[in-house]
Amino acid sequence: MKTIALLEPLAAELEQVEQKLREPQHLDYPILREVLAHLLDSGGKRLRPALALLAGHVFGAASEKLISLAAAVEMLHTATLVHDDLIDGALLRRGNPTLNANWSSGATVLAGDYLFARSAVLAAETENVRVVTIFANTLTTICSGELRQVFDRHSLPRVTGEQEWEEALRRYDLRIHAKTASLFSAATEAAAVLGSAPESQVAALRDYGHYLGMGFQIMDDVLDFEGEEELLGKPVGTDLREGIVTLPALYYLRAHPQDERLGAAVRDGAADETVREAVAAVCRSGATVQAMDRARHFVARSQAALGALPEGEPRRTMHALAEYTISRRT
Amino acid sequence: MKTIALLEPLAAELEQVEQKLREPQHLDYPILREVLAHLLDSGGKRLRPALALLAGHVFGAASEKLISLAAAVEMLHTATLVHDDLIDGALLRRGNPTLNANWSSGATVLAGDYLFARSAVLAAETENVRVVTIFANTLTTICSGELRQVFDRHSLPRVTGEQEWEEALRRYDLRIHAKTASLFSAATEAAAVLGSAPESQVAALRDYGHYLGMGFQIMDDVLDFEGEEELLGKPVGTDLREGIVTLPALYYLRAHPQDERLGAAVRDGAADETVREAVAAVCRSGATVQAMDRARHFVARSQAALGALPEGEPRRTMHALAEYTISRRT
Repeated sequence: MKTIALLEPLAAELEQVEQKLREPQHLDYPILREVLAHLLDSGGKRLRPALALLAGHVFGAASEKLISLAAAVEMLHTATLVHDDLIDGALLRRGNPTLNANWSSGATVLAGDYLFARSAVLAAETENVRVVTIFANTLTTICSGELRQVFDRHSLPRVTGEQEWEEALRRYDLRIHAKTASLFSAATEAAAVLGSAPESQVAALRDYGHYLGMGFQIMDDVLDFEGEEELLGKPVGTDLREGIVTLPALYYLRAHPQDERLGAAVRDGAADETVREAVAAVCRSGATVQAMDRARHFVARSQAALGALPEGEPRRTMHALAEYTISRRT
Repeated sequence: MKTIALLEPLAAELEQVEQKLREPQHLDYPILREVLAHLLDSGGKRLRPALALLAGHVFGAASEKLISLAAAVEMLHTATLVHDDLIDGALLRRGNPTLNANWSSGATVLAGDYLFARSAVLAAETENVRVVTIFANTLTTICSGELRQVFDRHSLPRVTGEQEWEEALRRYDLRIHAKTASLFSAATEAAAVLGSAPESQVAALRDYGHYLGMGFQIMDDVLDFEGEEELLGKPVGTDLREGIVTLPALYYLRAHPQDERLGAAVRDGAADETVREAVAAVCRSGATVQAMDRARHFVARSQAALGALPEGEPRRTMHALAEYTISRRT
């Protein structure tokens, strides 16, 4: 697993989260236990549980419940990745063969469901009805966002007029909120609730998570154009290849409405060469720089939201974490 | 939707459950709203929500929360059917084309996930941590049971010795508990919790739901051998065709260990004729009668559990409902 240097002080707690994620799972098939362990091993930087921990520390949330929340958030994230991979038909994620590449799709669906179920159990362990409600609503948001994405695939929005542009941007924002920002904000909001924070500060932490997630996802979308493939563990242009139009592509589209390369790249079954040409065109155009600017704008708003919180180590780390999300290369 | 005559007194409440199931779902794709409405329309007899309502009435659980619980239970059931259909590749369920037959598998996975999410939201509406925990644990049980089923498919257990027979029966019981009885008992137990029932009676209602669910599922498994196809809305032998060995098949196997017809029928890709021959052999052998006896035994235990509850209309209806589950033909 990759780690983020600035989360080093959380190492002991993140280790407890790991243990909770891997708690004996009453699964009597060794292959299944292996697969679930593999899924967790190939997991990311544990940014989401770290956010829950940091937000919880601001108000001294009880450690045990905070660990459950942090594990619930990561488990939910892992579950959505399993189904995402199935839907995308993605064969590689973070350089590891995905579950779907080795298993039947039926077993993959069920393994994802099982992880959803486990995340619900972990959320319930917080014994806080409001936390459970935040969690359930977030799951709904994530799922309806993914459904929307499936329906919007393989087609370019029209962005010629100013109104059309705003509508395309609004839909993009909705999508990345559902995909990423909703879970970031659930993590920070629920942690504040566990810490019995005053309502204004619950709202501040929700905002922090939301804006951070928006910036984080835009950065992900930028890296999908101009990241280094070895670092990412996947080829660039994955989104276009899957027919998904992200922010850099939208900026490119607005500046070059007559160019047909993007339309060709998002078409179902587009050739690799076609996708790579479109990626190169977007990178050359400065569209990724525009997208980065917008990511920075969101990150600045996330940092501004922190202003409402008591000063201290957790707040400083969250501030630095916001910088990290847009300076990262993977 | 089919109805059960003896649930007529619950009609008004079941109608509220329906409305809750169809609450505005923030889905901005008309096709999606249609599909979800279709899924709910083609739903079954609403036996699970009825169980929650009846169990709640014994202790006067608050109506609004009871309706949320009943809707949560039915929504969870519907979600599992969507993924089941995907996994089985079943093209018909209750005589309606399944979601999977019309949609891409990706959209089907997500539609199921969305319904899981909705069921979690409905469970959270009870604002009762214990109910939410029962719910989350049940979801885990259901998912691990389905995973187990996927791994056990297409192979016959050995049942020649007494020990092997007991082990085969134990595994069958585990599977039908996961598939059906766990949600029945979650419905009745959670309703008792909402009604603040004394612990001994919470346990009695949990037992009632559990044993009823066991009997109900065995009856389903019997109907899959000797039901009328027009009433069922699907061909007999569906389980064997999917490589799943249920109780009638187990009894047959024990009595005819040398017969190769069952083995041939559960093999992946078995011809329809092969399956029909095995179904006929099982029916002729008396194995379905033995299975029915075992279903009756479970139903009697479910009725015995009711003895711990205060007398009255809800208890009488639950008693009659237990009879119904094994006298039904669909």
